[in-house]
Amino acid sequence: MKRLAALILSSFLCLSLMAQKGWYRDKTDPMPVINPDKTVTFRYYAPNADTVEVNGDFLSKAERPALMKNNGNGLWEYTTSKPVKPEIYTYSYIVDNQKVLDPLNMFVWRNISDLYNIFIIPGEKTDNYQIKDVPHGTVSAVWYSSPSLNMNRRMMVYTPAGYENSRKKYPVLYLLHGMGGDETAWLDFGRAAQILDNLIAKGDIKPMIVVMPNGNPSQEAAPLENSNGYNLPLFYLPKTMDGEFEASFTDITSFVEKNYRTIKKKSARAIAGLSMGGFHSLYISAYYPKMFGYVGLFSPAVSAQEESKDIPIYRDIDLEWKAQMEKSPPLYWIGIGNKDPLYQEVAALRKKFDLCAYPYTYYESEGGHVWTCWRIYLEEFTKLLFK
Amino acid sequence: MKRLAALILSSFLCLSLMAQKGWYRDKTDPMPVINPDKTVTFRYYAPNADTVEVNGDFLSKAERPALMKNNGNGLWEYTTSKPVKPEIYTYSYIVDNQKVLDPLNMFVWRNISDLYNIFIIPGEKTDNYQIKDVPHGTVSAVWYSSPSLNMNRRMMVYTPAGYENSRKKYPVLYLLHGMGGDETAWLDFGRAAQILDNLIAKGDIKPMIVVMPNGNPSQEAAPLENSNGYNLPLFYLPKTMDGEFEASFTDITSFVEKNYRTIKKKSARAIAGLSMGGFHSLYISAYYPKMFGYVGLFSPAVSAQEESKDIPIYRDIDLEWKAQMEKSPPLYWIGIGNKDPLYQEVAALRKKFDLCAYPYTYYESEGGHVWTCWRIYLEEFTKLLFK
Repeated sequence: MKRLAALILSSFLCLSLMAQKGWYRDKTDPMPVINPDKTVTFRYYAPNADTVEVNGDFLSKAERPALMKNNGNGLWEYTTSKPVKPEIYTYSYIVDNQKVLDPLNMFVWRNISDLYNIFIIPGEKTDNYQIKDVPHGTVSAVWYSSPSLNMNRRMMVYTPAGYENSRKKYPVLYLLHGMGGDETAWLDFGRAAQILDNLIAKGDIKPMIVVMPNGNPSQEAAPLENSNGYNLPLFYLPKTMDGEFEASFTDITSFVEKNYRTIKKKSARAIAGLSMGGFHSLYISAYYPKMFGYVGLFSPAVSAQEESKDIPIYRDIDLEWKAQMEKSPPLYWIGIGNKDPLYQEVAALRKKFDLCAYPYTYYESEGGHVWTCWRIYLEEFTKLLFK
Repeated sequence: MKRLAALILSSFLCLSLMAQKGWYRDKTDPMPVINPDKTVTFRYYAPNADTVEVNGDFLSKAERPALMKNNGNGLWEYTTSKPVKPEIYTYSYIVDNQKVLDPLNMFVWRNISDLYNIFIIPGEKTDNYQIKDVPHGTVSAVWYSSPSLNMNRRMMVYTPAGYENSRKKYPVLYLLHGMGGDETAWLDFGRAAQILDNLIAKGDIKPMIVVMPNGNPSQEAAPLENSNGYNLPLFYLPKTMDGEFEASFTDITSFVEKNYRTIKKKSARAIAGLSMGGFHSLYISAYYPKMFGYVGLFSPAVSAQEESKDIPIYRDIDLEWKAQMEKSPPLYWIGIGNKDPLYQEVAALRKKFDLCAYPYTYYESEGGHVWTCWRIYLEEFTKLLFK
């Protein structure tokens, strides 16, 4: 058995063992180090570097990136100036101006073509983001045909615990990502499966199916999962906000309603999204006013379409809103952070809705245009669904 | 829209933009660079480093790791001495003795607690490893209850294209990972979903369900997907080869046969695994002789249990084999590479089988104890299944 272990290690080039000739640390401990006082210590070994910095959303904007200090042995260190609040954070190092990952932390998430290390500060806030001993839903990568876009496309589908063992029908939340994201974003950064598992287990939300499509109509699926192979993805994908995705949305709903045990009623369908996904949700729910009883706009990029005024789905929005709001949807929910650069844009939308006496629920949080907010919005929004 | 793009970039710390102050390259091009003559060029920017090396399975053992050359501007370069054959390869850099990932390539796979960059050389060999325009199966992360191990555990399940749209029943292949792996290994390193999709589309294999459980009985699920949170996993997990996983296997088959449309016959069940998973497959198929018609041992760690002789499931194997082989399973398949350190062990097993006149199919490939072989074995083995 020991012989087998040695063999396996050697077949993986022994990189783990040689990784830390200059400095070693028990690799089963999490990195970075969360100290008893909840400050966090980062360490990076780079004996010849001129500068090593650490960057991440655990730092305030003014602190970013933070210069680390060489302890004399080539080990650069940085400890946060104060305790770090419970949250999931992303970070990376900058060695002589080049971004690199933490060689001692294999937990990474991908955003577009960049990877970020992650760490978590446990606490009440992050409790729902963790995998706990509760019944777990199934998460599936599912391909569907999109005749409108003339391609096969991938979506992620969360079915709640118990779905497989029953004949029950479930309501459906369609949950959309932002620009630069794809069908995997809500599961990684958004902790959607964990949040759903935990809130359902507590009885805080109704069991529901959550469908996470890919909102980039020029892309079949996330990078490496599409036929573009190992070419790196563009940050700005074409056609994300030209009305095509919104118009093709019934390809998604048709597939889901055909293949899953769903309740086929407006009162059992919700759509929500963040940033560009909020923009998509706004227009899709207005364009198909009989479809969605529940709408959630999370930090929505309300006027992202401004360069494309001639697209009917965008041009006729005022009329569409009127038709949508006359039917009194059970919930039209708008969430935004008080430091979000889109704050004024959302304020203008609210003003318009107020003028027209359109009903909506408004949720303002601390924070900017970041996942820290969107994870909270997912919790707050799902608690109001399908009641 | 441009404003939105700028906003999204800024909310991700602008790390992409500042990543390459010293050197920049179009990030949509794949890294490393595959030259027209199929040599491969690696570049790493590290102006202050004493040494930069590149390591990976594209190099021969004698070449590993390869020293890179500083071009004078801080950019270290290495071009392979000869064309690199079509395959998927893993690589990483070693900067002043510390392993780091390629900052310009976000395609990574995880092995235990280490990440490796990957690149592909296209060609006939790798054709089935790519995502092509063929019908795609669904890949699901599914939790099941394991009463024998007293825990909820995760498995990955591949259902072939068309599964959702039919009432058909399917045969099932149980596909097991090796030591240090988990339920994700066959999907990442093994390209199982792509291989299945492509071989089914060509009509080379029968449509089948593929179940990939987690073979480490002390672990509910892969790292980050289990309740161990952000603690890094051990390389050597306890209880992987003490008979508990093998004895608990009916928890898995029961769940699958209850929740999927399977053909519930020995002739429609296969089990295969690599290294430790080959060991598991050997003992599980012998311990449950009525269960599996098809058995595949890929570079099996035949005698990995040697320290635990008193476990009945291992101790009684000769009797179990006799019972298993008397029933003439339609296929007992053994594959091994001619450079695999387990070659002699497998030769001893074959000798034993030959002495007893047990029928088996033997497949010997070029290569060692590596995924390059196991991907081929998956193709060769599945072509023989359920005929």
